[in-house]
Amino acid sequence: MSAAPPPDALPGPPASSFASDNAAGALPEVLDALVAANDGPALAYGEDPWTARLEAELAERFGRDVSVLLCWGGTGANVVGLATLVDPWQAVVCPATAHVVVDEGGAPSRFLGSSLLAAPAEDGRIGPDALDPYLGWLGDPHHPQPGAVSVSQATEEGTTYAVGELTALCEAAHAHGLGVHVDGARLANALAAHGTDLATMVAGAGVDVLTLGATKAGGVYGEAVVLLRPELAATAPFHHKQAGQLPSKARFIAAQLLALLEGDRWVAAAAHANAMAARLAGGLADVAGVELLRRPEVNAVFARIPPAAVAPLQAWTPFWPWGTEPGVVRWMTSWATTEADVDTFLTGLRTVVAQHLD
Amino acid sequence: MSAAPPPDALPGPPASSFASDNAAGALPEVLDALVAANDGPALAYGEDPWTARLEAELAERFGRDVSVLLCWGGTGANVVGLATLVDPWQAVVCPATAHVVVDEGGAPSRFLGSSLLAAPAEDGRIGPDALDPYLGWLGDPHHPQPGAVSVSQATEEGTTYAVGELTALCEAAHAHGLGVHVDGARLANALAAHGTDLATMVAGAGVDVLTLGATKAGGVYGEAVVLLRPELAATAPFHHKQAGQLPSKARFIAAQLLALLEGDRWVAAAAHANAMAARLAGGLADVAGVELLRRPEVNAVFARIPPAAVAPLQAWTPFWPWGTEPGVVRWMTSWATTEADVDTFLTGLRTVVAQHLD
Amino acid sequence: MSAAPPPDALPGPPASSFASDNAAGALPEVLDALVAANDGPALAYGEDPWTARLEAELAERFGRDVSVLLCWGGTGANVVGLATLVDPWQAVVCPATAHVVVDEGGAPSRFLGSSLLAAPAEDGRIGPDALDPYLGWLGDPHHPQPGAVSVSQATEEGTTYAVGELTALCEAAHAHGLGVHVDGARLANALAAHGTDLATMVAGAGVDVLTLGATKAGGVYGEAVVLLRPELAATAPFHHKQAGQLPSKARFIAAQLLALLEGDRWVAAAAHANAMAARLAGGLADVAGVELLRRPEVNAVFARIPPAAVAPLQAWTPFWPWGTEPGVVRWMTSWATTEADVDTFLTGLRTVVAQHLD
Amino acid sequence: MSAAPPPDALPGPPASSFASDNAAGALPEVLDALVAANDGPALAYGEDPWTARLEAELAERFGRDVSVLLCWGGTGANVVGLATLVDPWQAVVCPATAHVVVDEGGAPSRFLGSSLLAAPAEDGRIGPDALDPYLGWLGDPHHPQPGAVSVSQATEEGTTYAVGELTALCEAAHAHGLGVHVDGARLANALAAHGTDLATMVAGAGVDVLTLGATKAGGVYGEAVVLLRPELAATAPFHHKQAGQLPSKARFIAAQLLALLEGDRWVAAAAHANAMAARLAGGLADVAGVELLRRPEVNAVFARIPPAAVAPLQAWTPFWPWGTEPGVVRWMTSWATTEADVDTFLTGLRTVVAQHLD
Repeated sequence: MSAAPPPDALPGPPASSFASDNAAGALPEVLDALVAANDGPALAYGEDPWTARLEAELAERFGRDVSVLLCWGGTGANVVGLATLVDPWQAVVCPATAHVVVDEGGAPSRFLGSSLLAAPAEDGRIGPDALDPYLGWLGDPHHPQPGAVSVSQATEEGTTYAVGELTALCEAAHAHGLGVHVDGARLANALAAHGTDLATMVAGAGVDVLTLGATKAGGVYGEAVVLLRPELAATAPFHHKQAGQLPSKARFIAAQLLALLEGDRWVAAAAHANAMAARLAGGLADVAGVELLRRPEVNAVFARIPPAAVAPLQAWTPFWPWGTEPGVVRWMTSWATTEADVDTFLTGLRTVVAQHLD
Repeated sequence: MSAAPPPDALPGPPASSFASDNAAGALPEVLDALVAANDGPALAYGEDPWTARLEAELAERFGRDVSVLLCWGGTGANVVGLATLVDPWQAVVCPATAHVVVDEGGAPSRFLGSSLLAAPAEDGRIGPDALDPYLGWLGDPHHPQPGAVSVSQATEEGTTYAVGELTALCEAAHAHGLGVHVDGARLANALAAHGTDLATMVAGAGVDVLTLGATKAGGVYGEAVVLLRPELAATAPFHHKQAGQLPSKARFIAAQLLALLEGDRWVAAAAHANAMAARLAGGLADVAGVELLRRPEVNAVFARIPPAAVAPLQAWTPFWPWGTEPGVVRWMTSWATTEADVDTFLTGLRTVVAQHLD
Repeated sequence: MSAAPPPDALPGPPASSFASDNAAGALPEVLDALVAANDGPALAYGEDPWTARLEAELAERFGRDVSVLLCWGGTGANVVGLATLVDPWQAVVCPATAHVVVDEGGAPSRFLGSSLLAAPAEDGRIGPDALDPYLGWLGDPHHPQPGAVSVSQATEEGTTYAVGELTALCEAAHAHGLGVHVDGARLANALAAHGTDLATMVAGAGVDVLTLGATKAGGVYGEAVVLLRPELAATAPFHHKQAGQLPSKARFIAAQLLALLEGDRWVAAAAHANAMAARLAGGLADVAGVELLRRPEVNAVFARIPPAAVAPLQAWTPFWPWGTEPGVVRWMTSWATTEADVDTFLTGLRTVVAQHLD
Repeated sequence: MSAAPPPDALPGPPASSFASDNAAGALPEVLDALVAANDGPALAYGEDPWTARLEAELAERFGRDVSVLLCWGGTGANVVGLATLVDPWQAVVCPATAHVVVDEGGAPSRFLGSSLLAAPAEDGRIGPDALDPYLGWLGDPHHPQPGAVSVSQATEEGTTYAVGELTALCEAAHAHGLGVHVDGARLANALAAHGTDLATMVAGAGVDVLTLGATKAGGVYGEAVVLLRPELAATAPFHHKQAGQLPSKARFIAAQLLALLEGDRWVAAAAHANAMAARLAGGLADVAGVELLRRPEVNAVFARIPPAAVAPLQAWTPFWPWGTEPGVVRWMTSWATTEADVDTFLTGLRTVVAQHLD
């Protein structure tokens, strides 16, 4: 008769990672579509049938003519999107916690020459009043000239903007001549959270330029910059190329995006990821020593755990601390996270934290 | 017997301007020196005897070998100074109220490609803890890499750093591999306020790169970037030229700086400007409806006046509002401000404000 | 008895494209490797086992420690590679026909701030004497400062450098403190043409930074910047991220490169492409009205055809004109080109040209 | 009876320098105007009466509304002027010998992000056909997009464009949507050489943006960028400030320019400089071993002297070699050069060269 395991024994780590949604691989259907696109020759740089089909599909989804710039990755796509809205003498107002400020290594200022005006954010979000301190600068060459607002939907803090909030932000920006860029690396998660669609959430709200995220939504690679104002398309291809974001064999990105959009597969996958985050957050209530910092709107869970528990827990399954406060951490779910993964993670968490309670 | 003037009659405006210290002309001795430098041929771009004399003079003043880059103006000099400290993949931590953030039209990011990390400032100043949020970013390419700290001495808010405060800031920066740039557009005012000298305030504190201001100190034009770390001199001349800040007939700037330094003429002039600001601030106590916002350490007086009084007072003698709060204004003194100018200004202020009290 | 087809009837177009080697899809084994990499979670941004294996494999191939920066595409990889060699005050000497000059939309100057010094090229190549006009500029801030040489191997004109020629170029550059970057978008073709390997052609010649091309060699996407001087690795990751070239799910690029390198699969595929170009060039001798402009060293064939024949031939199967001279065209082969494709192309060419002879 | 001096004795060096026209000081009347402008307070950054008078004066001289951006120096003014014509995704076509290519340390690409497309020049000049190789690039994002042409008048080689030649260049540029920038650091010399005026040479020819040079024309410092197309003025002030070229005490530059323009003083001074160059060139005919390379159109004389004579002659009075060919040198005259200076220089030249003839 074998002995029971000791009560503090760790299970094997979860089969999926809570480190980031980009630690997951690709959705099988997306990979299948990529493979299927390897079918004979196709002209490069977007002059292929897959890209044409994607452009038609996106126009229908947005309910209007849009221009689509397929890009390699999120940082590049954000830079290209912003380049269509601001000249080097203009600046971008954005939350201080935005990916463009914190997580792109300074790429926007290096490529654009523009300043980022980092506004105080609450839970990753800004409202129309974030523009106020900069509006008096308009027209005076001594001051950086706000030319665009950039917000993330969903935000880096796992929050979202309601359609009405995004609309209000767009209206305030437009009233003063600023364009609006949305970093939608996790747009699918926001669409799922709000039960709405691209036409309503993006076009309807008045967004000018969208970074439509595919990688974190289940792609292998690739993003799309969608221009919702036709006049932006005139110079956009030149920024696109200069930013090193014009893919040669573009069909392979277009095919992935078509597979993600088909039957709103990307939203369904994001809804699943969101649900897994909710399950994880809900389970934390039963873990002594762990504080949920915010109810997750999408697929990110922020919590405070005993600082001494961070390293052993990371050794079991990797994840990242968040900000500078010891013990504050982020756990992310993805299309690949299963209920079993969540439950395993909670078990491991409970075990490790129990060992580090005062 | 002539009638007394009506009690609300405005006198003629003051003979000098309270709009800015760069509304003053040049000190007569500085202009004389510029004229005297027009003496026969001299090789351009700093290969002239005046520039050589200035370099020797500054080395003596700083008590060490320094490299001097004569520049045209303040924005250019700041950009050149920062370029010697940061590569495009590095960022600059600075107070959110700094000239480089607010008043240079975004020049630093455009020329450097670098991000400015605008730290919350108190009365225009930051302390060593301003670095803390960014130190965790060092070494991680996802985040902008702090490469330098830039502060203004005196600050744009009319405050200063004590030598010990500047030393602490330099020590914190150096401990993490960051360089320190000081925007000394009004350094003479700070030297006068603290009764100290370049060797103590700049070299002694550990500053790496100084923008030494001449224009606001009584010059016609011209600034000097002083490099206090010899190794910075290797690549500095290339940044200097690329920034369009290498003067051709450099002798005319060097001659002005020599005249400013002679007998510490610039510090004496700044001490006078500081005294005039103190006189103005002191006089405000007797003006009903005007609130002094901060005891001036140097030559800038910040006050709150009835918002309705701003325009009529500006019509009498020009000055600028400050920030976005109605009625908050800045008045500056200079070498050219006389006691009579201050008293005239106070009389006009009293008269106009009295007409706009509730 | 059926009638013979009319002598000027066009066959169906070839099954592969002669427009460019990036009109081909991916090698099946490369696609298989990409699919196989979709196996569970893996940390993003290169912290995955595939990337580690690739780095080890490349170190062995180059015969020394190298640093590898996986990039998305060719333009981005070239920009990242050059960024490791030059600061913004430095310039890059390169052939006037180089991809970085002609075909990257000005990306290098936009991202780097550096000037490109375009030297007269002969058949796409430059020799060590191309540096001579710029060597006198070194040290003088009035002139752009040559900091690197960049050449393509194979060149955009379908020529190559012998190992000895590349060595001589590296020696001349190094003698004056310049680094050497090789744009190896078609390096496999050059390796095949010279029957040599990475250690000999790149490391042995003294190259400092290589853009190792995978896309045109049979990949879906992805390139690698290989740093052969260890000290370049210190700041390279920051340029990599800022250029928007740090892939999130890096394992999918690493897996492709491993498949390309396995058994020198990429060189075999390139040798095949080269052979198909030779077959095409050889066949031109029999086509009246077509002049082969240069014996192809790799997989590009340049020819002069009757200008009036260009459009009808393009309508049959697409390809690009080359330069500004009417009738001068480029035809490219790839791993996917078959002997039958070449023969079909020659038949079509003969047919169309015959209709447009004087 | 005193002995005659030895036949090879050198006289004292000339009182003015032949090294460059910026080795001369300022015209006395210009200096007087600068001194006279030091009269009481004046708002900074161009909101002063001198700047207003200058703008009115230039509008009259050009025969149309123009916008004037006072700048510090030539490199900065060229960068500002080009920034009004090209976005970062556009490129500038210019002669390979242009100051912007050769003598500004790469400033244009660093600030603009734009590529310079250096066209082969003949005696410093290009014709409309210089555009031809780049016109096919327009609209294709793979290629740098020509957005402007920049030429120098007079050129760096001492040649000029006739009004008709400049007109033809402008017409060709405009026909393809390119703007035209003229670097007029030595415009006065060209006006004098052609006996024409700003309205004819600049506005009449169709130039869009002019760098109007004051420093080499007899100023202490300062240049003016003149925008001849009103729509360029909308964004120009932002580039102006970002380039660090917005002077604070602008009155001192405006006053100098007014003095230069008064009675066409700058053209008279340039005519004198041109005449001194002609005198020098004429005198070379009598100096064995010296070859005049080109009849000077303006104030630059290019000659070939025995290479061994260069250093001893420079030791007597400084000047610069030109290009890479040993013994090829440039001598420049200025408003300050006297006939006696020329004759002294010829005497010294004859003496030194005689000692180094084979």
